[in-house]
Amino acid sequence: MSNRSDDRAVVGLESCAVRVVDPGRVATVCASMPPANDVAEVADVFGLLADPGRLKVLVALLEGEMCVCDLAAVAGTSESAVSHHLRLLRAHRVVQARRSGRMAYYRLADAHVRMLLDVALTHIGHAPAAAHPERQESEGDVT
Amino acid sequence: MSNRSDDRAVVGLESCAVRVVDPGRVATVCASMPPANDVAEVADVFGLLADPGRLKVLVALLEGEMCVCDLAAVAGTSESAVSHHLRLLRAHRVVQARRSGRMAYYRLADAHVRMLLDVALTHIGHAPAAAHPERQESEGDVT
Repeated sequence: MSNRSDDRAVVGLESCAVRVVDPGRVATVCASMPPANDVAEVADVFGLLADPGRLKVLVALLEGEMCVCDLAAVAGTSESAVSHHLRLLRAHRVVQARRSGRMAYYRLADAHVRMLLDVALTHIGHAPAAAHPERQESEGDVT
Repeated sequence: MSNRSDDRAVVGLESCAVRVVDPGRVATVCASMPPANDVAEVADVFGLLADPGRLKVLVALLEGEMCVCDLAAVAGTSESAVSHHLRLLRAHRVVQARRSGRMAYYRLADAHVRMLLDVALTHIGHAPAAAHPERQESEGDVT
């Protein structure tokens, strides 16, 4: 206990030098925490978006509904690979499908999905060219 | 070629029964596609959010800045596990840290991160209790 100041010298930003838990604060935050299965479900959704191949399909759908053939051509991959991605994404309500004649068309399931993609692209400094061409060079300083 | 109608009967929503690529549409969508390294970077960010342990820490930070001790208590895990999550999240600009005396405090890096979490929680039907208590029972039908 006598070497607390030494401890403090070596700890980084990732830890507190002393352990002081605020029980009231912890209780408040725990009370507002979603149930564990909700947290797991959100983690699953983010996991679906964490694959560059699936993400490319979804970013393509930001431009509007597309058929599976066109999605495969945009993603530069096989239709069977794209179909596999789409099946997973549809199971988790990330995309929606409709059949029109011989073609299968896909779109983003809702505004939430669009927003997740838009916000994540903005976070890393990429502004969608079609929507904000003037912002492409200046997006990096968004905080 | 003569059995196209049979093909059509067995294909699911995940594929087109015929392969018809619209070159103009594909070119337009490809032109608006972010560079591959941007797509990979976004996938990395989503990957960080895809771990239930890290996600719990981030959802806790939706309630405001917290010290590492309190975050560990909320997450129900060790401080070293939380520190490891925080180090990764800080490296990807998902959280920000500040030291105040002996305590290390963390907060969400920016409004983008907050929005990603809020939108994903809403997508799965969970409305943050503190913000919208009246919406908890009716959120599932958001489209």
